[in-house]
This record gives sequence, structure tokens and C-alpha cells, in this order.
Amino acid sequence: MTTNTQIVLRAIPEGRLEESHFELRRGAMPALAPGAALVRNVLISQDAANRAWMRGATYRQAVKAGDVMHAYTLGEVVESADPSLARGDLVLGDGGWQQYYVAPVRHLRKAARHEPLSHLLSLLGVAGKTAYFGLVCVGRPKAGETVVVSAAAGSVGVFVGQIATALGCRVVGIAGGAQKCRWLTQELGFDATVDYKAGKLREDLAAACPKGVDVYFDNVGGPILETVLFQMNLHGRVVCCGAVSQYDARDMESPRGLPGLIVIKRLRMEGFIVTDFPEQDAQAERDLLRWASEGRIQVVEDIIDGLENAPRGLIGLLAGDNRGKRMIRV
Amino acid sequence: MTTNTQIVLRAIPEGRLEESHFELRRGAMPALAPGAALVRNVLISQDAANRAWMRGATYRQAVKAGDVMHAYTLGEVVESADPSLARGDLVLGDGGWQQYYVAPVRHLRKAARHEPLSHLLSLLGVAGKTAYFGLVCVGRPKAGETVVVSAAAGSVGVFVGQIATALGCRVVGIAGGAQKCRWLTQELGFDATVDYKAGKLREDLAAACPKGVDVYFDNVGGPILETVLFQMNLHGRVVCCGAVSQYDARDMESPRGLPGLIVIKRLRMEGFIVTDFPEQDAQAERDLLRWASEGRIQVVEDIIDGLENAPRGLIGLLAGDNRGKRMIRV
Repeated sequence: MTTNTQIVLRAIPEGRLEESHFELRRGAMPALAPGAALVRNVLISQDAANRAWMRGATYRQAVKAGDVMHAYTLGEVVESADPSLARGDLVLGDGGWQQYYVAPVRHLRKAARHEPLSHLLSLLGVAGKTAYFGLVCVGRPKAGETVVVSAAAGSVGVFVGQIATALGCRVVGIAGGAQKCRWLTQELGFDATVDYKAGKLREDLAAACPKGVDVYFDNVGGPILETVLFQMNLHGRVVCCGAVSQYDARDMESPRGLPGLIVIKRLRMEGFIVTDFPEQDAQAERDLLRWASEGRIQVVEDIIDGLENAPRGLIGLLAGDNRGKRMIRV
Repeated sequence: MTTNTQIVLRAIPEGRLEESHFELRRGAMPALAPGAALVRNVLISQDAANRAWMRGATYRQAVKAGDVMHAYTLGEVVESADPSLARGDLVLGDGGWQQYYVAPVRHLRKAARHEPLSHLLSLLGVAGKTAYFGLVCVGRPKAGETVVVSAAAGSVGVFVGQIATALGCRVVGIAGGAQKCRWLTQELGFDATVDYKAGKLREDLAAACPKGVDVYFDNVGGPILETVLFQMNLHGRVVCCGAVSQYDARDMESPRGLPGLIVIKRLRMEGFIVTDFPEQDAQAERDLLRWASEGRIQVVEDIIDGLENAPRGLIGLLAGDNRGKRMIRV
């Protein structure tokens, strides 16, 4: 235990992210500092937002060329210089794509043991909580309303759809490819799906939503957002969670018709991130665990072994090749 | 009293609205029908939205070629076929650009006498209520926050700015021309103004809003909306009231950077129209009357005499030549 394998972002991608933008490096073990802990990463969360962080400062610092790639991780404390954490404790933190990291204990969040551990990044992690807060706290659908979610087979989408079903909504998922769509209806209980790769999104969405769209959980932005906006009902809500269709683009392509559509239909478009709801966190955990134990939520995970596969994992996720929550097992 | 002077929209404008799109006509007096009332228009409200109604169905029927131009009006009952209204009663309704109209009494709203009458279309009418509901119920600014309003010298803008001041906010108005801007700060108590015609909106807005923008009341859409969006603070609110910059355009020009900015800054963009808040109406009237009586709101009106001047009045309003609430005295 003298070297620390790391993956570094060599250069900021101008267009599509590729494996050549990354580089594997064997660094020195980081040194423990006062008030900090040395953590061994166990699972690395892969999120479409990771790509957005390369585009500049957002709700957090930008990833810069030469940085160890940023990522949320679940890790185990190896050594602690602060009494609040002890060897063997599980912690969530900004661990990045590497085996070990040192962080001030105030930047680490102790997590209770949970079986399986991976649920701490899926059901109870960024994916499940993002879905919960976005849908329940921002979208606020009522039973009987039509909820549409894009990237429906992705990390967040699979939870959004299942939570909406648990809330008594009609759920329509937008995903790429007939196979994924079939899986969403047959295995995850979506009421209907729309394959955006089939080339007639407008017509297919209208057919899948005969009563229009009340809540749209948007993970993709771009032309799909535009198409859904035109099918929103009066007083509809658009939960702005991400814009994965735009992260590889040089300039964001805004949907047409704004702000006219917002006025005419009295829409609410609202952005959020998962850390905006500390007061609702305990309730979210209770609801998510209950729905999972009742079989109303299947926890779908897509775990890839080996830190060296992190670049391939993220690039694939941006292309939509995952089903459910993607992570890297270090 | 045998003819009814009316102004008809001859053709739907493809680009800029011009006087040639309208035609004065002497029609027959409309006949009273069961359950209806014959109303003489006293004041016609002119609103930027009138132009938007020509673009197609919105929250109401489109104005079609050949229609008497639609407009909200204040009128006096001449004859009533229903016991709920009597000769001499004041009513608000969809009276249009004409001297007389007949409407079912259920489409008319009886108004209490008020001195001056014009306040029923300004302070207590569409202008004042739109400002109140949009700012108080949608934008929900807190004292000390920075509120920006565009078309600040217009019908709605003058009320938005003064209400925001009454709520303890720092108020910045965007308007066209140095004279209008001076008037807003010197006469209406705006804290600062930005002249969008001066050609450096971005820099001037940043200088006028050193702490960023918390609430933006948007009457204009287009490039001004885009500029403000980039200067919004975290958790900022954009009140989508209208898009006057776009009504003469063939295609709406959406602001760039959406939905990315909404996610990153966790913005809320929300549309509304004045009829969305029946439960808050009584409170709105109380607050508006109180602020006016305390001298916190000046009621600024821009009344043009003569029905024949309605086309010129509306075209001028779309170009921003009015100060305060524009009406036509029939």
C-alpha cells in the first residue's frame, strides 16, 4: 500500500468525451492531515452530471485538466485524525476516480451499514434521492396525473418512474431503443414508453399521453424537452434535473417557444440538485426503504468492476448504455 | 343610437402590427338577448397581450381576421335582460374595440363605483392585479432581495416596481431611453434603472445589481430575458408574465442556456395570468388600495381619447411609447 491508482482528466473535451481524455496514473499515497481521514474508495458513483462539471463551474467547482476526475464515492475509513470517524467507518464523499483519498472529516458523511452496500449509492444515494426530491418536492404530482420522465432507464429515471407509480400516477418513460422500452413496461411497471430513437417522438408521445403531460421530469434537455413542452397541460410542472443531450455539445440548444409556452400554459420549470433538501432527507429515506421493502421499487444497478473501467463507464452512460444506477467497484 | 362604431382586425399581421391591419366600421346596434345585457364601453384596456392573441389560441380564443378587435373593457349597462344587472351598473368584460356590445351576464363582472373610474382598469384592473399576483404570489420576493422588472415604465411594470419597493426590496427597472429611466428613479422611486437601448445591457445590469438578481419579473422575453437569466442568483425566480419583444416576430427566439441555467442555479421560471388567483383577489384589492392611499403607489395612467385611436394606441404600446397603464376613452 504505497501507491494510489488514479484516473486523471488530461484535457477538457471540446465535443464528445472520449477515453483519450483520461489517463491512468500511479500517484503516492496521500498523507493524513489534522482533522482529516484517509479513505479507501469502495464504489464510485457515475452520473451524467460528471460530464457537466467539465464545462465550467456549476453548483460546484469545475473539473480542470490535470485533476483526478471528480465523483461522489462510497468509501471505508482506513485511518482517521479526528475522533468523529474511526477505522472501518463507511463514508460518502467527493472521493474521485482513485483508490484512496484524504479529506477533512467535515466534508465526509458517515453512512450506516446497509446490505447491499451499493444501495447507499442507488436507492439511498444520489440516484434515488435525486428522483425522490425532484419528483416529490419539485414536481409534486397528484394521483391520476400523467408523469413523463426522460432517460427513463437511467440511474435516476428508473426511480422516478417507480416512485410516480407508487404515488398513483400514470407513468410514461422516454428511452432509446425498443428493448429498453419493453424492459421498462414489462419489468418496472411503466404504463407506457416512447422510443425516442424511432424518429417520431411527437406523435408517439401524444399517443402515450392522451390526456397531456402534467409533470415532466427532464434529464436530457434539447429537442426532447422541446417536444414535451408543447404537450404540457395547463399548470404543468417541468422538473429540470439535467440536460445530458447537451453536455457534449459546444453550445446548449434551448427549446423553442420560451418563454411564450410558460406564460400561455402557466408552466413552472424548476431546477434543483440533490443537496437542496436536507430537511426532507429523513422522510425520503423512510419512503424509499418502505417502497423497496413492499416491492414497489426495484433497485436496478449496473455495476462495473475495476477503476480502470471508469472512463468507459461514464462515456457509455452518456450514450445511454446503462440500465439503472451505474457504479464502479474499485 | 342606431349604429355601433367598431374597429375590426382586417388581417392577421405576419410581422409588425400596423394601422392598415385595422378598419373602422359602422355596424348595427347589437340586439339584447335573454340572459344578456347591452353595455356601452367607457374605457378600453390596452395590453401587450392583445397582440399575442393574434398569434393563435392562448389562454383564450385567438383574434381572427374579421373580428372586432378583442379587449378587456369597462362599460356601463344600457339595458339588461337579467335581474342581476340594472341600467347604469358598471361592468368589466370582454367588450372589444367598439362602442356597444351585448354579452351574457355571466360573462360580465359587476364593478363597484370608484373615483376615478379609470382605476378599475389600472390600480384595480388587469395592470395592478397582474403586477400584484405575479410579484407577490409567483415571485414571492423577501425584503432586501433585488427585484428586476422589464418594460418597467409600462402598464404592469410601474406597479411591479412600486409594489416591490413597498415590500422592502431593491428595485431595478429595465426601460428604453434615458428619459423614461430618469422618470422611474426620480418620480416612481426605483432604486436604479437600465436603459436597454444604450447597447450594453449586460454591463449596465451587472452594475445596477451588485448582489445579482433574486426575482425577475419578465414582460419582454427574448435577449433581455437571456441577459437577466445569466445574472440570476441561486434559487432565483423568473416571473413569466409576457414576451412583448417577441409578439411581432415570426418565431419566438428562446433565450440561450436553457435548461442548463435552471438546473445549475436552481431557478424557478413560472408563468401566470391575472385570472389564476381568485382566492387572493380580495387581499390584492386591500393591499393595492392601502398602498395607493399611503402614497406608496402612484397610479400612472396614459389615457387616449377616441375609439378611432385604438390602433395607434396599441401599436405605440408595443413600441414602448406609453408610460403607465394605457387605455382608450370611448
